[in-house]
This record gives sequence, structure tokens and C-alpha cells, in this order.
Amino acid sequence: MYPFTLDSQLQADTLVLGQLPLCRALLLDDSRYPWLVLVPARDGLTEIIDLDSDARVQLMHEMAAACEVLKAIYNPDKLNVGALGNRVRQLHVHVIARFVSDEAWPQPVWGVGQARPYPPHMAGVIMDQICEGLMARGMKVSEC
Amino acid sequence: MYPFTLDSQLQADTLVLGQLPLCRALLLDDSRYPWLVLVPARDGLTEIIDLDSDARVQLMHEMAAACEVLKAIYNPDKLNVGALGNRVRQLHVHVIARFVSDEAWPQPVWGVGQARPYPPHMAGVIMDQICEGLMARGMKVSEC
Repeated sequence: MYPFTLDSQLQADTLVLGQLPLCRALLLDDSRYPWLVLVPARDGLTEIIDLDSDARVQLMHEMAAACEVLKAIYNPDKLNVGALGNRVRQLHVHVIARFVSDEAWPQPVWGVGQARPYPPHMAGVIMDQICEGLMARGMKVSEC
Repeated sequence: MYPFTLDSQLQADTLVLGQLPLCRALLLDDSRYPWLVLVPARDGLTEIIDLDSDARVQLMHEMAAACEVLKAIYNPDKLNVGALGNRVRQLHVHVIARFVSDEAWPQPVWGVGQARPYPPHMAGVIMDQICEGLMARGMKVSEC
């Protein structure tokens, strides 16, 4: 186990799905887009290259699992994957299902409009679907 | 060898650095940002998850090498890594050195302002530095 505290901005903007082998898996609380955030659960990381080689490979597996789950549930027109971190420096990877009909298309989603939080009765259903999808793809998801 | 034709828009916007084990490595011809584009050299790919598991891992290694080279040469404030593809559907990964002083900061670079092509006498120097940096990190770079 590595020491890990989730960045306060990420904590404020997301709902916790669970802990994967490497990453804290989060659902961005913005119902405009199916949008996962993966945060390698080790303090002090800013860049992908701050991870050692094994952890980089594990990050790729977890990014791919997140992509596969969003594709299976939402059948998006495109997946967007990005590690930017210009505002929140704690290393985190966005995995976003994009649609030609979404409000930001074809631009990136960051900085466009205002987040619309999920209605509470919807968030739980969506989070369960995503966690089940991750587990169905062999990804271990622990509570945290 | 897999059949591969580089997307015409990527071809128009970039300078060719060389062929890595998986990806065609390109320098975006925009002197505002040190900006590499990695294109897995196989036709028919749109998403990272269109790659098989071994190729996903190789993509991570090549992304990391690109990050390390830009960090070593430019000492940026942040690296941005992204696979979006909303406009150009051929799978490609952006690796961009970002600076607090750059014109888009802290927003993503995509869609901000107009590209400023490198002066021809600068492009060759920069491309040589990047290729040497990749090879110094054990990455095979072939001409193409």
C-alpha cells in the first residue's frame, strides 16, 4: 500500500466508484457526458512518467477497461482519453464517452459550459452498471 | 508489417520524425508548443481499445518515451497526453509540452488560435534532437 490522498478538487467534482489495482476510479458528477476519472492511488504523482514501468502498464490496462465499459454501455461516437492536469496537478486520466450530439462536440469537453450533477436517483444506477462492467472484464474493484 | 496509410490531415499538419516499433512519430508543425503525435501504424484503428493487449502496452512505452524526451529537452510545466480523435478518426496520441506562459494555458491546446509552422531552418534541428532523445532512451527509430 502506498500513501494516497485524493485531491480535494477531484473529490468535490466526482463520485467514487471504487479502487482498482492501481487507480481510484471516479465518475465525474456531470450528467452531460459519461466521464470516468482514473487516479493512480499514490501520493506525489503528476505525470504518467512518474509511475514506474509496471504501473504504467497497469494504467494502460485500467484505461482500456474504462474505455471498454463506456463503449459497451453507451455506444459512443468516440472515446476521449486524456491526462492533462493543468489545473489539478495530481495525476489523473480522463476517459470520456463523446457523442456528435453532445454540447462540446467536436471540441474537447474541458472548460465547456457548466457541469450538471446527476440526479441522486440516477447516480447509483449508473455507478452500479459501470462497476459491474469493470468486474465483468476481470478488473478487481474494491470498496474504498 | 501491417498495411498503413497516414491520415491526410495528420500528414498535412505534421513533420515525420520516424517509425517507432508501433507508431509513426510526428512533430506537429506548430512552433507554439513542443507537440508530438504518435500514430499506431496499422490501418483501421480509431480507439486505443482497437489495439490488442500487447500493442496497448507498446503504445504506453512509446507515449512514455515521448513524454520523457519532451521533459528532458524543454523542461515544461506540465505534459498533456491525449487520444481524442473527434475530428481525425485515425487513432493518434498527442504528447504536448505545456507552459504556464503558453497561449492556451491552462486550457487544452486543441482549437486555440492558429498553428505557427516552424521556420524551415529550425524544424530540422528540433527533429534531430527529438529523434536522438528517443534513441537515447532505447527506442528504435527507423526512417520512413
